[in-house]
Parts: sequence; structure tokens; C-alpha cells
Amino acid sequence: MAVRAAVAGASGYAGGELLRLLAAHPEVEIGALTGNSNAGQRLGALQPHLSPLADRVLEATTTEALSDHDVVFLALPHGRSASVAERLGDEVLVVDCGADFRLRDPAAWERFYGTPHAGTWPYGLPELPGAREALKGSRRVAVPGCYPTTVTLSLFPAFAAGLVEPDVVVVAATGTSGAGKALKPHLLGSEVMGSMSPYGVGGVHRHTPEMVQNLSAVADEPVTVSFTPTLAPMSRGILATCTAKARPGVDGDRLREAYEKALAPEPFVHLLPEGQWPSTAAVYGSNTVLVQVAYDEAAHRVVVVGALDNLTKGTAGGAVQSMNIALGVPEGTGLPVTGVAP
Amino acid sequence: MAVRAAVAGASGYAGGELLRLLAAHPEVEIGALTGNSNAGQRLGALQPHLSPLADRVLEATTTEALSDHDVVFLALPHGRSASVAERLGDEVLVVDCGADFRLRDPAAWERFYGTPHAGTWPYGLPELPGAREALKGSRRVAVPGCYPTTVTLSLFPAFAAGLVEPDVVVVAATGTSGAGKALKPHLLGSEVMGSMSPYGVGGVHRHTPEMVQNLSAVADEPVTVSFTPTLAPMSRGILATCTAKARPGVDGDRLREAYEKALAPEPFVHLLPEGQWPSTAAVYGSNTVLVQVAYDEAAHRVVVVGALDNLTKGTAGGAVQSMNIALGVPEGTGLPVTGVAP
Amino acid sequence: MAVRAAVAGASGYAGGELLRLLAAHPEVEIGALTGNSNAGQRLGALQPHLSPLADRVLEATTTEALSDHDVVFLALPHGRSASVAERLGDEVLVVDCGADFRLRDPAAWERFYGTPHAGTWPYGLPELPGAREALKGSRRVAVPGCYPTTVTLSLFPAFAAGLVEPDVVVVAATGTSGAGKALKPHLLGSEVMGSMSPYGVGGVHRHTPEMVQNLSAVADEPVTVSFTPTLAPMSRGILATCTAKARPGVDGDRLREAYEKALAPEPFVHLLPEGQWPSTAAVYGSNTVLVQVAYDEAAHRVVVVGALDNLTKGTAGGAVQSMNIALGVPEGTGLPVTGVAP
Amino acid sequence: MAVRAAVAGASGYAGGELLRLLAAHPEVEIGALTGNSNAGQRLGALQPHLSPLADRVLEATTTEALSDHDVVFLALPHGRSASVAERLGDEVLVVDCGADFRLRDPAAWERFYGTPHAGTWPYGLPELPGAREALKGSRRVAVPGCYPTTVTLSLFPAFAAGLVEPDVVVVAATGTSGAGKALKPHLLGSEVMGSMSPYGVGGVHRHTPEMVQNLSAVADEPVTVSFTPTLAPMSRGILATCTAKARPGVDGDRLREAYEKALAPEPFVHLLPEGQWPSTAAVYGSNTVLVQVAYDEAAHRVVVVGALDNLTKGTAGGAVQSMNIALGVPEGTGLPVTGVAP
Repeated sequence: MAVRAAVAGASGYAGGELLRLLAAHPEVEIGALTGNSNAGQRLGALQPHLSPLADRVLEATTTEALSDHDVVFLALPHGRSASVAERLGDEVLVVDCGADFRLRDPAAWERFYGTPHAGTWPYGLPELPGAREALKGSRRVAVPGCYPTTVTLSLFPAFAAGLVEPDVVVVAATGTSGAGKALKPHLLGSEVMGSMSPYGVGGVHRHTPEMVQNLSAVADEPVTVSFTPTLAPMSRGILATCTAKARPGVDGDRLREAYEKALAPEPFVHLLPEGQWPSTAAVYGSNTVLVQVAYDEAAHRVVVVGALDNLTKGTAGGAVQSMNIALGVPEGTGLPVTGVAP
Repeated sequence: MAVRAAVAGASGYAGGELLRLLAAHPEVEIGALTGNSNAGQRLGALQPHLSPLADRVLEATTTEALSDHDVVFLALPHGRSASVAERLGDEVLVVDCGADFRLRDPAAWERFYGTPHAGTWPYGLPELPGAREALKGSRRVAVPGCYPTTVTLSLFPAFAAGLVEPDVVVVAATGTSGAGKALKPHLLGSEVMGSMSPYGVGGVHRHTPEMVQNLSAVADEPVTVSFTPTLAPMSRGILATCTAKARPGVDGDRLREAYEKALAPEPFVHLLPEGQWPSTAAVYGSNTVLVQVAYDEAAHRVVVVGALDNLTKGTAGGAVQSMNIALGVPEGTGLPVTGVAP
Repeated sequence: MAVRAAVAGASGYAGGELLRLLAAHPEVEIGALTGNSNAGQRLGALQPHLSPLADRVLEATTTEALSDHDVVFLALPHGRSASVAERLGDEVLVVDCGADFRLRDPAAWERFYGTPHAGTWPYGLPELPGAREALKGSRRVAVPGCYPTTVTLSLFPAFAAGLVEPDVVVVAATGTSGAGKALKPHLLGSEVMGSMSPYGVGGVHRHTPEMVQNLSAVADEPVTVSFTPTLAPMSRGILATCTAKARPGVDGDRLREAYEKALAPEPFVHLLPEGQWPSTAAVYGSNTVLVQVAYDEAAHRVVVVGALDNLTKGTAGGAVQSMNIALGVPEGTGLPVTGVAP
Repeated sequence: MAVRAAVAGASGYAGGELLRLLAAHPEVEIGALTGNSNAGQRLGALQPHLSPLADRVLEATTTEALSDHDVVFLALPHGRSASVAERLGDEVLVVDCGADFRLRDPAAWERFYGTPHAGTWPYGLPELPGAREALKGSRRVAVPGCYPTTVTLSLFPAFAAGLVEPDVVVVAATGTSGAGKALKPHLLGSEVMGSMSPYGVGGVHRHTPEMVQNLSAVADEPVTVSFTPTLAPMSRGILATCTAKARPGVDGDRLREAYEKALAPEPFVHLLPEGQWPSTAAVYGSNTVLVQVAYDEAAHRVVVVGALDNLTKGTAGGAVQSMNIALGVPEGTGLPVTGVAP
């Protein structure tokens, strides 16, 4: 088998991570690489870490360039994916790393994005109940946002077991690559090194409705999420601290049992042994998610901390994992499970 | 006026920051510097940033070394302050940067520290109602913990105005200097750079009862605090995200009004203009606290973010501020209000 | 005395550091703050660490805005200073943090900058022989480049004592603030964190002729400098490693003696005790330069390492130091000599 | 084929990187993992990034534990390898990541290490002339030091082509993992973040004689090396700036031609296109070395900058590369050639 894959948006961080993974994927042959303002440039000048692909040249993102591939990964700005996907035809697997097709509720989309809703594609979070089935054979995949991936994988066992109230507080720290390569003053190295800062506070971050959608589905009732993202002085990684009131009768043992049961079958999500807590360093460059839970008796709260690499499991690794499922390749193919540390 | 000040624990991070501030304080003359394992060493070998004091030599922490000073700052491990203070006499101002005399509830002390309670001293957070009066002329000061300082200053306006429910969630990131100079593997540069990780999760961090004490006093009812501290890849700074359910009828305007009113008189705590959020970089090396608030309508929650430098306002700056008040020196003397950035 | 000072270029990193120092300078009153694209904005939105000046508003950089001041600091892009200075008149002290008036050799200027030479002003490196005399009473000062300051202060004692051959190799690491607030991809936090990279290799960096000028003057013969700057994952600081062949008969003792003699009188340049080496952390935010020397017998080379803060002693601190001398204020007024560490 | 490999020193940084690579090596089965003070602990507690091996338990480093393997990697403190290797027998491939068997000159060993010389093993730098032949079938390999690997690969083309004088200056920056997991104050995160500092200045660093040995062999004449290592605020990576006087008649074209010719056949060492310079970020976690050269006409010097990951190509990747050659496995098997960036 040789899956021919194109990457649209190959000059960005998500595109670069897709190429890092695809270059080592035994079933994939890398086809067209496209970009916009960077069309015509050597990849080596834009992504110097991708040595084996250094002499590849970026094309413009056109239907011609992207046609004749088995899989097309879209790492484009929001709002661009629908028109590209339409022209590629239904037999091509289109894996969209953008937000366009993640939400099921058009009203939520419009409230947070201010544009008409493009539709909903099978959601590329295989660990959610029913998700693997929906992905198998699908030719469209909406890759989840990096924060919703972290938070959903951290909290779904608690909601699935009915252990917590549907009122969640999440505070998460992200590495700067989550903001992409945009040339904005607050993303300059001089500004971010040595500094923690919040953004999108007060329920306005666009990943909020996606968390609400995922957790409400698992809980089978409406869940509210108070989400505060913060920018941390590191390139990669998300650490999400998630908490909700424990339901009556819940204690540490029941909590741990629920997490063990829910996560044991998952190849990429690991509940750590008691007493050990996740760090983003431990998942740097890997598709692994590390999770730990605690029960705070005084506050009667469940606290869950999840860590992943926003570019790997949070974006490109999740995308490849879903591609594998969609194409019938073993799910873990080409996906690193050890982090690069220290 | 020339206040003669000694620093016990001069080789640590809190001690170093005390000396940085005291060296520039126009009313202070630096007397004895003491340490334990480092007695006999040049300060320049231990604190190379304190050039003007480089040739001072550390003495052992004895009553003899510390006597004959107007002020003695204690930056010692927990449990050491009581016996030192006793021997110094009642007329000496003793400012304790450790935890020993912060808590009023002996049971809370014993639950979190496992030793007998040493007592309670006037609490060195001048911004709390009544605190300045208690500090004036006092000869004992318990400097608050760095997290409680951040969280209390972030939340007291909301509780004082009765705007939030007494069930608080705090997730805070700290720079590594908060852990001191202890030689522990997880504090190695190789481990912390590029990594976020939580610790003391589930209500077990020792600063929790201090937050509960402060906020319950302001709220005039018992407040629970779910506190999760995280270690961030930076040397200094705390960013605390604090949230509680809004009480009925609260909205963004009432919230902002309460914060403006509560913080306007404070020289070191600034409410940022709407739309601007705190960062730890902006308070690096300064005694300033930056605060911003938001009302999340969907989650019906108040979210407050506070930032300060854990070694300055969070420890040594707070200590000097309280010393100034205790001695009748203008409160801001010797305290930097601009950060060192970028 | 109340010196009224304006800062042109107040929104950049050099401008911000000037304001941090001037705000704490007891003889200075801060007048106009000007910018270009940022005119009309609150300073607090651009320099959030300068709390006491947060509500000041930037004006456009015009002669009107800058007139009626005793001192005008220029932190402008290269090539802009001459015309501004001309219009300010001869009685105003103009301190230029840019490169325009540093070089004495028009040919060197034109080779490295490609524009006509604007002229030469008294050079603001007081530690050079004769420099203080030239600065006293002067109404024009050319503040040295940050690398030339580091390298000149590291090597002048060796050349003044005739200990080394006139063929110097310098490899220096700088924090990213040295590149200013320019929105360039390689300056993004995601790119610089965790990464060292060189730039301007092979004799093309514009600070090279300035080092050649300074060292040749001290050596009284032409000195060549092979200079390689590197970008380090930190916001501030320069660490310069400088080496030259030892002249016959030189050994470690003669070397140390020469450095002790040359640096002893200098308030801001400290030769460390034997065995201790400089770090940029130790001079963070201070006007101090730390220097250490070694004699490598096998390679018959003198190795000198110097560290300073590129924004303080390397730019704004050096500028204020020269202003003090020019105005007859004690040289160290308003200049911090302790670093902010850790 | 299934090569059974043991790692002695599995709890350290070199050991961890060996395991990361070996876990993904298609021909290797991981056998015993040994440690000293950590014997009896789960690997997951010590190396949390190695998820697939988390439940493996460390044994004590004994002959029993290490016997019955095809390959034994030694990542032990200096001086420990000889006795372990002796007891393993001649048919086992022993790959020593320590220094014990790198130097050919007993006097150089004794001068720098102060102990009797243990001997010399085939040197695991396959890119050196003749090295691959010596490694083929060998059952002993001395893995080079991380700095000597960087510097030798950066400079050997210039010496092989006779383009430079035998008097080299090297200034290199290393990530903190190069210093291992030792609990030393200057390696604490609080100390290294935001700081550059030199160490081992003046010809005393133990990697110096190894560089001298390698370059002298290529040059076929004695080469002196002035080597200054510096510690950079990053976990991984070495950036070495190397310079030597150009021999008469050398210019940029001849230089580039020599590097292109020497490096073209090498799978892991890449000469970048003109105008592009190496960064450590681009080789993070990969076995690739990036090199660029420049000719400085004014200083008549050749300047070469090389970048690699000290734990991968600088230690564990180099070790696996040599193992592959020794065992007759294709040289690049199991070795990542893309970096993890940003």
C-alpha cells in the first residue's frame, strides 16, 4: 500500500508537523506541498528541521496541485476548507486541521466565528464513544482543536461515569506554536520568554463551544465550560487543569476506577500511576496524552490534569491517527509514542 | 533615619531579593547576612547579581549575629522562625518570610504542616481591610505566601462587594524560583525548560488554608478554594486565574465598578484598562500587581487574573512594604514599581 | 536640578528601557514621548511594565514635540537621527542610541551601511581612555552599539597593556531584545525558544567596524576582528567570548594584573575573582559589566569573557551614564548596579 | 534479525535518549535496563517520556544483568566502563558513551582526567576518513564526546582540503542536558533560564584533547584548539562556531567547494544552501548535523558553524549509528533525520 498524501498549508506549524510525521509513515508517500505567500520557495528555507524534504518546492494551493492524491491534509486559515474540499471530490480523503467542520450547532459556529456554518464532518477524536466507527471508511475528517482534544480526553471518563456536575472550569497553558506563525508583537520571543499571560478570557475563546459539544454529548446533558487559556514560555505543549464539583458519593477510589476503566483500552491516552503528574515535556513530539486525577475532599471537587503536544496529538498526530482509521491502516502506524525529553 | 537591617537566609532566593531591594532602600543600612551551610562564603559567590555586596561574608545564623539591628528579616525554612525571633527581643522588628506565623487556625496549621502551631503575627498584606493599622508600629510581621498574595489581591474586591459565591477555583502558574534553591531533579533546567507541570494537586498545597483564611475573612463566611499550582518554564512570576460563580444580578459593569473602587487607592495593585490582560513579564522585578476581570455570561462566572513577581511583591517586596509601614516610613520607599521588560 | 528629558522612539525596547531608568532617576523629569506608527496610543498598551507612565500618550516624532527639553534621547532606526538633531539646536543635549554618529571613518560607515556618513559625535563609552573628558559638557553623544560595548570593555585592558596580538576572534550570544520589536519570523517565540543560531557571520555584522575602531585606538595599531553574533533563547543579555594570541612573555599573572589595574577604577565594570565566570543572569537589568580572563597555555591565547545587559549598559544605561557625565551629574545617578536574579 | 540490547545507566539523559531511539529501532529488542541509585524503580518514574517502557524496572548494574545481550550500551560516569566491558566478553558489542576509550594518547588522558589510561577503542565517528572500516565488525566502540562530534564534523572538510592554519578557535553553546542530571546549583532552572555563561575556559575542558586528536589526524600536523564552552538556556543542542586563519589563496569559492565535496556523501551531515545558517532547533531530536561556512575577507578567516542535538547525534544517535555499522545493519536504521520543531 502506498497512500499518496498532499499537505495544503505546508509552511505553517501544523503543516510542518504533518510532514514530520508523514515523512516517517511507512504507508505514505508525500505528494504536493502547497502554500500561499510562500509558493515557489524551498521547503528547507521555511521548515529547516525537515531535512529529507529540504529541496521540495511549495506550490500554490490550487485544485490542480492537490488533485491526484489519496489524502489531502488541510492546514489552512478558518473558512478556507469548504471550497477546497468541494473541488477535490468525494473519493479523496480530506482531513481538515481547521475549525470549519467541527461544530454541529450552526448557531454556536456563527456566534463564535461570525460566518455561515459550512457543515459538520466526522470528528477526529477516536477516543470518544462511537468515533472510531464513524471514522472508518470516511472520506472527510474534522480534526479537533488542540484544547478540546486535551480537555475532552481529560474529562470524558468522569462524565461517562456520571461522577461530576455539568459545570466545568478549565485553565490551560499552551506553547506558542498554538498561535501559529503569525507575526504579532505579543508572539515575539522577547515578549513570551519568561512570561505567562492569559488571552480570550471570559468565555470568548473559539474552542469553548467545541468543549461544550463534546462534554455535553458524553454527559448526555448540557455542560457549561469556563475556559481560560494562557500562553506559556515554551514552543509546544498544552497542560489543562480541569475541575468540576463531584457528585454526591464520589470519592478518590471511584474516580480512579472510572479513569482506569475508560483509559485502559486507549493506545495514546495514559492514566499515570498515583502520585505522578503529567508534564508537557514528557509528551514533546509524541502522540501520547498523559492524564492524572485527584479528588479534593475539602472543596468536594474532581481535578483532572491532562498534557499533550498541541502540534502532535493536538493537531497533526490526531490527524494522522484519524487518517489511519479512515483508510484501514493500523491506528498507531507512523505515530511516535515516546516524547523527546529532556 | 538609618534603619539597620539583617537578613537571615541571605544565600537563598528570598534572601537575595531582600538584599537587592534593601541595597537600594534610602533608609536602610545592610547589617549582618547569615546563612547555614554557606556561612563563611563571599556573598558574591552565591548571589553574583548583588555586585555592591559581593565582598560581604555570610555568618552563621546565630542570635549574636542578628542582634543589634533594627529589623531582622527571616528567610528560613519553615519551623525555624519562632526560636530565632524569641531571642531577638520585642523591640526588634522581625519580618518573617516563612509560613510559621501566617495562619490563625492552629488546626489548619497542624493539618498542613504536621507540627505544633507557633502562633500568629500581624499579617503583611497591607491591602487587606484593617491590615495597615495592624502593621503600624508592630514589631512582628508574617509575610504572606506568594500564591495567597496573588489570589487574595485578585479576589478580595469581588468578595468585599458580595459579587461571588464562596466556592473558588484557582489555577496558578509560578516561576521556578518559588521552589527555592533546593537541589531537586524536577527543578533542573533540563527538566523545567519547555515544560508545564502541576504539583500539590487536590487541595494539599500548603498555601491553600492561607487563601481560605484571607478570603473567608473578606467574605465574612467560609470560602472553599480548589487550588492547583503549576510550575512554568520561567524563573519568576505568578499568574493566577481565579474564578467563582457570580451571584444573581451580577454583570460585567457591576464587577468592573467594584474592582475599580477597591483597587483605586492601592499604590501597588493596578486594575488594567478593559481589554488588556496581565502578564508576569510586565511585573518582573517590580512590586506591582496587575489585575483584570471578566464576566463569563454563558458559564455565569467571574474570572479574575492576577500577576505579580513571586520574589518581589510575593515575598521580599511585600516584606519591605510591611517594614516601611511598621516603621512609619512612606509605604513605597525603596520599592520598584516598573518591571524589567522585555 | 530638574532635567527635562524626551524620548523619541518610546515604543521600542531601547525606548522602554530608557523610560524605566529615567522614571527612577532623581534628577530627571520625563517630558515628551514620541513614536511613529504608535503615536496616539497609551504607553501602557505598548510598555505594560512601565506602570507609573501607563497613561502617558505617545506623540508623533516632530521637532515641536521634542523641543523645550534639556535632553532628547533618540531611539530611532538608523539614518533618522541627523535631521532630528539638527532641528533641536546646539544647546540641547542629544543622546543618540542609533549608529549614525558612532564611526569616525566615512569609508567604514559607507561599506557597512550603504548611505552617506552623517558625522561623528563624542562616543559614549566613558571607560575608554579620554572618553569622560570628551563627554563632559558635550551636547551630542553617540551611544555605542551593545556588542562593541561588551567587546571593548572586555578587551581594552589587554590591548592597553600590549598583551595580545591585533587579531581578535569574538563569538557573542545576545538576547532577542537586541533585534528590537521587528516582526520577523525568526524572532517569534516559537522559533527562538530552545534554539541557538548565528547571524551576520563572516565579517558582515555592522558592529564589526565599531569594534575595530575602538580596539585599534587602544592598541594604537590596526586590529582585525572576526565577529560572530548568535541569537540565544533569552530576552536580554550579551555574553561575549573574546580571544587573541598572547604576545611573547605573557602569562596568567601579567594578564590578571593588567585587568585588575585597568578595571579597578571603573564603577560599572567588575573583574570577577579568579575561578568565577560572568553570566548574563547576574547583570539582568543592571548597568554592571562582569569580566573574567584566562590564559590558555596550550593555545597560547588570552580568553576574555564579558557579560552585560544589552538594553541597560548596552544601550539605555550607557546612554544615561553619558548623559550624567555630559550634564555634570554624578556618573552613577539613577543607574542600578544590582541585577534582577534569578 | 533481533538484536538484544542492554543499557547501563538507563536513568540518565544519555540512557533515556538511547532508549527512545532503541524503542523505535526495527532490529532491536530492549533487554536489561540498569542503574545505580535508581535500581528497583519503574522507568516511568525516571523517564516519563518513555511511555512504552514505563513499567520496566531498573536493575543494578551487574555483569549478570548485562550478560546475554548482543549489544551493551554504557552510559556510565567516567572510569567505570573498562571493568564492566572486560567481564562482558569479546563477542558482545560494547558501545561506550563515556570518555574512557576515546583518546589515543595516554599522556593527554592523564593530564585531563588524572587517572591511568584505560586504552583506546575504535572511534565512533563514522564520518571521519577510515572510521567506517574500523567500526565494521568491531565489538568495541568509543562514542565521541558531543562537542568533539560537532567541531570535528564542522572542521574536517577544511583541514582535509588544507584550507586553514592549524590554530583553531571554537566557542560553543550547549543545552543543559549536556551536563547530565547532576544536582548542582548552577544547573537549576532558576539559574539557567534567561542566562548564558561560560565554563571550563582557558583550555581546561576535557573535550579539548579529543578535538586536537581528531583535527590533527585529518590535518596530518599538530592542531591547537582554543575551546570555550558556554551553557545556554535550552535543554538540548550544540551550536559551535569554529574559526581558523585561511591559508594563502583560499577564498569563499574554494571553501564552499571543499565542503560540498566532503559532506555530499554523508547521510547525517548537511551543508546548508548559501545564506542559510544552522540552528539547534532544526536538529532537535534528530541525528542530523547542519553546517554552514563563510570566508571573512577582512579578518582572512574561515568561519564554520555546526549544529546538532547533543543527546542524539552528539551521544545516543551517534552510538546507534556506530552500532548499526558494527553489526552490518544499514547505517541509518532507527535514526530520525527530521528535527522536532518548532
